[in-house]
Amino acid sequence: MSTMLTGIAASSGIAIAKGFKLETPDLTVEKKQIGDVEEEVSLFDQSLEVSKKELAVIKEKTRNELGDEHAEIFSAHLLVLSDPELVDTVRQKVRDEKVNAAFALQQVADQFIAVFEAMDNEYMKERAADIRDVSKRVLAHILGQPIVSLAEIDQEVVLIAEDLTPSDTAQLNKKYVKGFVTDIGGRTSHSAIMARSMEIPAVVGTKNITSEGAADVMVIIDGIEGKVITDPTEEQLAIYRKKQEEYEELKRELSKLVNEPSVTQDGHHVELVANIGTPNDLEGVINNGAEGVGLYRTEFLYMGRDQLPTEEEQFEAYKKVVETMNGKPVVIRTLDIGGDKELPYLDLPKEMNPFLGFRAIRLCLEMDDMFRTQLRALLRASAYGNLKIMFPMIATLDEFRKGKKILEEEKAALLQSGTKVSDDIEIGIMVEIPSTAVMAEQFAKEVDFFSIGTNDLIQYTMAADRMNERVSYLYQPYNPAILRLVKMVIDASHKEGKWTGMCGEMAGDPVAIPLLLGLGLDEFSMSATSVLPARNQISSLTKEAAAKAAAEALDMNTAEEVKAHVEKLF
Amino acid sequence: MSTMLTGIAASSGIAIAKGFKLETPDLTVEKKQIGDVEEEVSLFDQSLEVSKKELAVIKEKTRNELGDEHAEIFSAHLLVLSDPELVDTVRQKVRDEKVNAAFALQQVADQFIAVFEAMDNEYMKERAADIRDVSKRVLAHILGQPIVSLAEIDQEVVLIAEDLTPSDTAQLNKKYVKGFVTDIGGRTSHSAIMARSMEIPAVVGTKNITSEGAADVMVIIDGIEGKVITDPTEEQLAIYRKKQEEYEELKRELSKLVNEPSVTQDGHHVELVANIGTPNDLEGVINNGAEGVGLYRTEFLYMGRDQLPTEEEQFEAYKKVVETMNGKPVVIRTLDIGGDKELPYLDLPKEMNPFLGFRAIRLCLEMDDMFRTQLRALLRASAYGNLKIMFPMIATLDEFRKGKKILEEEKAALLQSGTKVSDDIEIGIMVEIPSTAVMAEQFAKEVDFFSIGTNDLIQYTMAADRMNERVSYLYQPYNPAILRLVKMVIDASHKEGKWTGMCGEMAGDPVAIPLLLGLGLDEFSMSATSVLPARNQISSLTKEAAAKAAAEALDMNTAEEVKAHVEKLF
Repeated sequence: MSTMLTGIAASSGIAIAKGFKLETPDLTVEKKQIGDVEEEVSLFDQSLEVSKKELAVIKEKTRNELGDEHAEIFSAHLLVLSDPELVDTVRQKVRDEKVNAAFALQQVADQFIAVFEAMDNEYMKERAADIRDVSKRVLAHILGQPIVSLAEIDQEVVLIAEDLTPSDTAQLNKKYVKGFVTDIGGRTSHSAIMARSMEIPAVVGTKNITSEGAADVMVIIDGIEGKVITDPTEEQLAIYRKKQEEYEELKRELSKLVNEPSVTQDGHHVELVANIGTPNDLEGVINNGAEGVGLYRTEFLYMGRDQLPTEEEQFEAYKKVVETMNGKPVVIRTLDIGGDKELPYLDLPKEMNPFLGFRAIRLCLEMDDMFRTQLRALLRASAYGNLKIMFPMIATLDEFRKGKKILEEEKAALLQSGTKVSDDIEIGIMVEIPSTAVMAEQFAKEVDFFSIGTNDLIQYTMAADRMNERVSYLYQPYNPAILRLVKMVIDASHKEGKWTGMCGEMAGDPVAIPLLLGLGLDEFSMSATSVLPARNQISSLTKEAAAKAAAEALDMNTAEEVKAHVEKLF
Repeated sequence: MSTMLTGIAASSGIAIAKGFKLETPDLTVEKKQIGDVEEEVSLFDQSLEVSKKELAVIKEKTRNELGDEHAEIFSAHLLVLSDPELVDTVRQKVRDEKVNAAFALQQVADQFIAVFEAMDNEYMKERAADIRDVSKRVLAHILGQPIVSLAEIDQEVVLIAEDLTPSDTAQLNKKYVKGFVTDIGGRTSHSAIMARSMEIPAVVGTKNITSEGAADVMVIIDGIEGKVITDPTEEQLAIYRKKQEEYEELKRELSKLVNEPSVTQDGHHVELVANIGTPNDLEGVINNGAEGVGLYRTEFLYMGRDQLPTEEEQFEAYKKVVETMNGKPVVIRTLDIGGDKELPYLDLPKEMNPFLGFRAIRLCLEMDDMFRTQLRALLRASAYGNLKIMFPMIATLDEFRKGKKILEEEKAALLQSGTKVSDDIEIGIMVEIPSTAVMAEQFAKEVDFFSIGTNDLIQYTMAADRMNERVSYLYQPYNPAILRLVKMVIDASHKEGKWTGMCGEMAGDPVAIPLLLGLGLDEFSMSATSVLPARNQISSLTKEAAAKAAAEALDMNTAEEVKAHVEKLF
């Protein structure tokens, strides 16, 4: 009988196929006393090796198909399996207590997980999830339980699961897995992010899809509205087949815009560019017709490893990006680490309020060597394309001046040594701290461009941690306070003949786009998959109407009023 | 031989007297096996009781002489000594392991201290300091070591110590202890705050005063410049006696301003009012000629206890304040808890960034019952004087409207029941979140007044935790961004015929005062002891020159430029 569930629309599109339920292997472990402990240790070691090999394969596959950023998590998983603190403790437990390897592993892993989960630190909590994922894999090998390989699915299905681990999602073959539905998860959970990257429809957080008997019956996933229908009627099937066709038709229409400029009905040009994490993301950038890279987050070069990347490694990455973009602008942000992004090997002190702490440019200005290495790599790469440099988390003019001075010292030294460096690199800043928005007039005299980072700017302007659910109601992109700050920045830049971009989530948001266009934003940087819909939207607007709507929004009282206003007008 | 040390000027003034070194008692403990464990438990219990009695006396003395706010720490100390987790564990250890009470106490206390200190939480770290302080007292009694009672000093001295614990400072008799110098501590350490409250000169953080042979020789403390001279020459003595006289003369001059209004040379009036924590602080408010209370922090009513205060307790406190102020304005801030101020009995979730978290009005709007109880107490007290109500941490107009609606519901209910409530209570908000400063035009149409909380406003505007030393360089009151936000708020309020005050530390800062006066600030709320110096300073300024200086500062680039500008002009 047909049933409908609602969940969170995690990845857009319509999928219709037979349900395939991912069964969780039975990993129940009993404690046993072992006679030959060395044999048991050797069973553990073999299972460990098999798991490592599997993970290396999954990592390579992920890197090739989805890019370094997504592959990085498997580097972390492999590090777990090489951690002597974990594996030696298991071996010792088997030997000392003469217990079975499965029991020893489970006990040790549970202890590690409990310790990491108790820490008040997102990074450490993620390590707990990593240990859970990899220890299950090793345990399955010890127990001889089959690990369902999603890579082996060879007919079109819709995947049904309680949740998907990173290693599950990495193995999905887009050709056969048309979409997935899970019991748990949210829009920013790992599996949801992966689904959007892979462009397959997904609905997560349905609470009980796995108990709805969805296996082996037809399942419809509506990733636009967040609905799932199991065992649909003929009528429902017809409706959703039509909806699917319309969605595909819209995608085809959008794809025609790939090589078009981004122009409003009244002839106003803006630039639509993309955010990237690694050079591997460039394929999506080009396929989606982005006019450049508005934000290259260099953090990923520094993450999932145990020491700083060398100047040469960085140079190669930056060079590849500017060369691939072939003269189109590439804005590269210097290291933005700290806050929720830690680098274990830097051994930074724990902070009470990491979002208000020692991070990004604050840290780079103090860790001078690390900063200079990155700047040299950037300067050298500038000779190969249209490279712009951007400093994150600038709060005062002093900080910008210090950063620029260091950059100029490194540039002079490179030129002295005969190294080629572009002579017209634009140097800009992220505007993500309220003081910098308020001081935009002063900054505009010294920087070449601004890029507004709305995720942080909203967080600080509203004094509300965007990761904290109890105050998430204060994360208000449409709050007139935010629009007023955005206006200050844009106006200040234009007065000095400079330009302003935006590289936060807001830049790709259909409600925000008319307002930003109206305020005069020059460059919109977003995830690559948002570029074509945004170009389509902009082509339907006039600058004049957008400017009028934005001016009215500035004087409104609340974010809700602004949202209703935009939705009524456009 | 005369030597000079420099430290941190913790409390202003000059003290000259013989040095008295506070010797730390020898609390070395050896582990002993005990035959009669019950006798040992009884020794522990007696020592516990004596310590409790001493602490109760110290607490009462502190409450009478310095007020509830300072006495609160001893409530916390007494709670430690009544905590069964601690004292029962000691007793059990004596019984189970047949060890001496001193050893058992030290072991248990050290464990508790280690656990609390490991927590990433200022509140818990303070609990570690409490346990250290009180367990030393109990240990001294067990060991029969004399506890140096500072209350017994009966000749004029300058106290020399490694550090002073809260219980040490509470016992200081101002008549004999003319000032103190410590090896460790900073301007905001407990002993520094106490010294300012008691108005005795102090220099802290000299690193090695205790090893300088300062006992029984003359010692000069210069709490203005942060200098200490031991065994001074006759010439030095003469210089500092003169400096001391000048300082006392200035104080006498200032005391003449107690009943004067606060007026500039060109006849512009402002209001100088005081911040208080409890009704006991009112004596200082009146003695220092404050024209009202600009900020009554109600948190102290909720702290150092194990359940919420009743409506009646709150009503009595609020009534006492407005009655004592006898018609002068009293601005009472509703509960501002969360962030660095926790209430253990509310059992709030741990947050990754508490300063950006669930606190103050955010929490009150959700914990409706607690909020309504406070509002009823405030409304009832309004009948007894000039009471104004202020909501903290307002980020959006919605929050203000919700808070005001609840207030009006409670007012209507009280009037219905025949309870007297003032019919012209002003309802205002703290402006301490950037969004609210930026939206001041909109807010000014709905609120009766603004009070700018600079401590938080600076922290959020610069995105820098003011408690985090690594980013403390970003705590910049004179940054033009802050001045621009302050101007937005003042201008918006005046446009609607409302007034703006300031209740952060900046309001009493001599460098900031000309700028704030120039920007048109109506009310300056500061610690009571700053009121007379501020009145004196304002009487030497003209509004016209201040306005010109402030306008120039708004267009400057950095905080340093602004500071140099003010210091040159005034």
